[in-house]
Amino acid sequence: MGKQSVRPTRAGTAEAVLPAGFRAAGVAAGIKKGGAMDMALLVSDRPAAVAAVFTTNQIKAASVRLDMQRLRGRVARAVVVNSGNANACNGPSGLRDAREMTRRTARLLGIPEKTVFVCSTGTIGRPLPMDPIRSGIAGLVPRLSPGGGPDASTAILTTDTRPKRWTVLFRAGRRTFRLTGFCKGAGMIEPNMATMLAFLTTDAKVGAADLQRLLRAAVGESFNRISIDGDRSTNDTVLFFANGADDAPALRPGKPGWKAFVAAVHETTRELALAIVRDGEGATRFATIRVRGARSDRDADLAARSVANSFLVKTAWAGPNPNWGRVMDALGYSDARVEESKVSIRFDECLAVRRGRAGPATQEELRAVLARTEFTVEIDLRLGRGTAFVHTCNCTEEYVRINM
Amino acid sequence: MGKQSVRPTRAGTAEAVLPAGFRAAGVAAGIKKGGAMDMALLVSDRPAAVAAVFTTNQIKAASVRLDMQRLRGRVARAVVVNSGNANACNGPSGLRDAREMTRRTARLLGIPEKTVFVCSTGTIGRPLPMDPIRSGIAGLVPRLSPGGGPDASTAILTTDTRPKRWTVLFRAGRRTFRLTGFCKGAGMIEPNMATMLAFLTTDAKVGAADLQRLLRAAVGESFNRISIDGDRSTNDTVLFFANGADDAPALRPGKPGWKAFVAAVHETTRELALAIVRDGEGATRFATIRVRGARSDRDADLAARSVANSFLVKTAWAGPNPNWGRVMDALGYSDARVEESKVSIRFDECLAVRRGRAGPATQEELRAVLARTEFTVEIDLRLGRGTAFVHTCNCTEEYVRINM
Repeated sequence: MGKQSVRPTRAGTAEAVLPAGFRAAGVAAGIKKGGAMDMALLVSDRPAAVAAVFTTNQIKAASVRLDMQRLRGRVARAVVVNSGNANACNGPSGLRDAREMTRRTARLLGIPEKTVFVCSTGTIGRPLPMDPIRSGIAGLVPRLSPGGGPDASTAILTTDTRPKRWTVLFRAGRRTFRLTGFCKGAGMIEPNMATMLAFLTTDAKVGAADLQRLLRAAVGESFNRISIDGDRSTNDTVLFFANGADDAPALRPGKPGWKAFVAAVHETTRELALAIVRDGEGATRFATIRVRGARSDRDADLAARSVANSFLVKTAWAGPNPNWGRVMDALGYSDARVEESKVSIRFDECLAVRRGRAGPATQEELRAVLARTEFTVEIDLRLGRGTAFVHTCNCTEEYVRINM
Repeated sequence: MGKQSVRPTRAGTAEAVLPAGFRAAGVAAGIKKGGAMDMALLVSDRPAAVAAVFTTNQIKAASVRLDMQRLRGRVARAVVVNSGNANACNGPSGLRDAREMTRRTARLLGIPEKTVFVCSTGTIGRPLPMDPIRSGIAGLVPRLSPGGGPDASTAILTTDTRPKRWTVLFRAGRRTFRLTGFCKGAGMIEPNMATMLAFLTTDAKVGAADLQRLLRAAVGESFNRISIDGDRSTNDTVLFFANGADDAPALRPGKPGWKAFVAAVHETTRELALAIVRDGEGATRFATIRVRGARSDRDADLAARSVANSFLVKTAWAGPNPNWGRVMDALGYSDARVEESKVSIRFDECLAVRRGRAGPATQEELRAVLARTEFTVEIDLRLGRGTAFVHTCNCTEEYVRINM
């Protein structure tokens, strides 16, 4: 924890070009007001190994509960997604509706229902509008195409202002594979994922168990290291489909191509996670909090999250108001061990705090750093060797307007 | 924990009429821009028993560290206060400045330095402007008067929009005593106090140990049960002076008048705590979160605080947007045990959630409750007998404007 163990070469691009054997589509089914796309379908032409990570919230959307069952089969063919309604806190009828979404999709595609996953995102506690959803599914299937990634990645959005996509090519032996991910974020973004959905696809051949281990590690270094407002949602889901054809070399740890694959997965989850923070609700600044010198990695993580989740820190950065005292304050009430006289805090190149007191940087210098679109806050606790990082954003009046 | 064990008869008034033997003053020393009062002095004419509760933040202001030492003496004569500067994170010179404030005050009053306490509140990490502070102390002493409570309670304010005062009379045997408190709050208000200072005074005679136990219990049910933004400050201090004259009957547990005194202390701390939430930065709604049916009081407390500290809940109430799904979400990610299908949530008389799903209340009915200046959110987890309550406020765009 806390180490950025894999530093991918930024070879990828912010596109949603699907790997071989995948098709996708997006339609406006009428769940959202105003005619925006609100349903997506992603299909693998072959059975794909599947891995997934879900919200840690005790209250889980019906789609999450259904997908947790389906994951045991380790094989996926499709995922159907709606935005505009979370299908959470809807009781038994929520689960019935989620299951109907997968059954209808399976029937129209001629595939087993158990290989169809489902995701929902939007408002909690409203029944799914099943008539639009049924016609949405009927509209999605004929629109499926290898070029449908952009539409699908747009149809899953809620308060996001732009789609979040990443595509990277990697080599295994003499063959080149593609890894493509897209996701949505915007609010309820904290430690253990967020109101976020992410979909990863690859045409490489990978066993489900290896895929699951790798996905969990990559999520730990990416989607679990961002914070927008400290809230964790009922619907968070990351799904990863690997549909490598039978003649493809199977990727597994220690074999050729595995390292390139791992790097591609880390790069993609990291780029998508950063895209979520950069598009945080109302955010105008992107900040990376790095803590070192903590007594342990766990302490470093506690300290970094305490700063990243402090609304007084985040509103100061809306000014920008170079009030490093609020960072010290958030360190002090974190559950990490902190000794005031040892702490140093650097905003990019400016030393704001040295041994617990104002450092040489002037208010004007600090203000200039905070006026940047992106900056890093380096915190040294000087108590040990623990390190951690969290990516976060500022909190503006717009955040309140979006959520009220 | 969690029980409102003492329900005072609301006999008091929102005034700062000092008990016999106390004098106070407030002046504009020039620490704040714009000429507002920014220094206060509160003096007991006799040595007073003293009790205190301080911030749990590991990073403590110099004034807090000095007061923690002074508290061991158990006797107080005065407290000198400045607003506009927290004197926190100023290294050894911070402690030197805090000590100088008490030394100068003691010399001018002709009392031992060790009986003088000091509090600071304002921005962290700026050296105390000692010239204004020295002339402020010199100006305070000649202005001391029994009628100085209103000035003193105004001079301690920072982003507060109004003073927070409470005075109550209580009987012990055939004598009537007075208990008077005033405090400041506004931001950095969370579980374990806040950027808050509170001063309690009484002309009753109470031993320091009894006073300390009572104060800690009362703080647990009042200042520790409010949340504005989840941040805990470096400066939080509650000081309680009891200066009963030698001929007064000593109040102690089990003796006549003790219960009346306890009720007066609980009433005063509760009224002051509620006044802080009602004047939360930018707040326009006051909400009480009550949880029952938790597996334990601790679980109830975790659940209530998770809801009270969720910015998605608090911004929804700025709308007002009757989005009970965000309350369910915050319960689900709390560390309390929650089972979706058992939860019910009531906003005043409206049942928003029954057994985890939308209850009979319409959106319009819920919106009408949330449009009230004050409302209660009753959450029943139906898992046990644990209860807790927390008072909180909504989060508006104004909160961001104040802090950026």
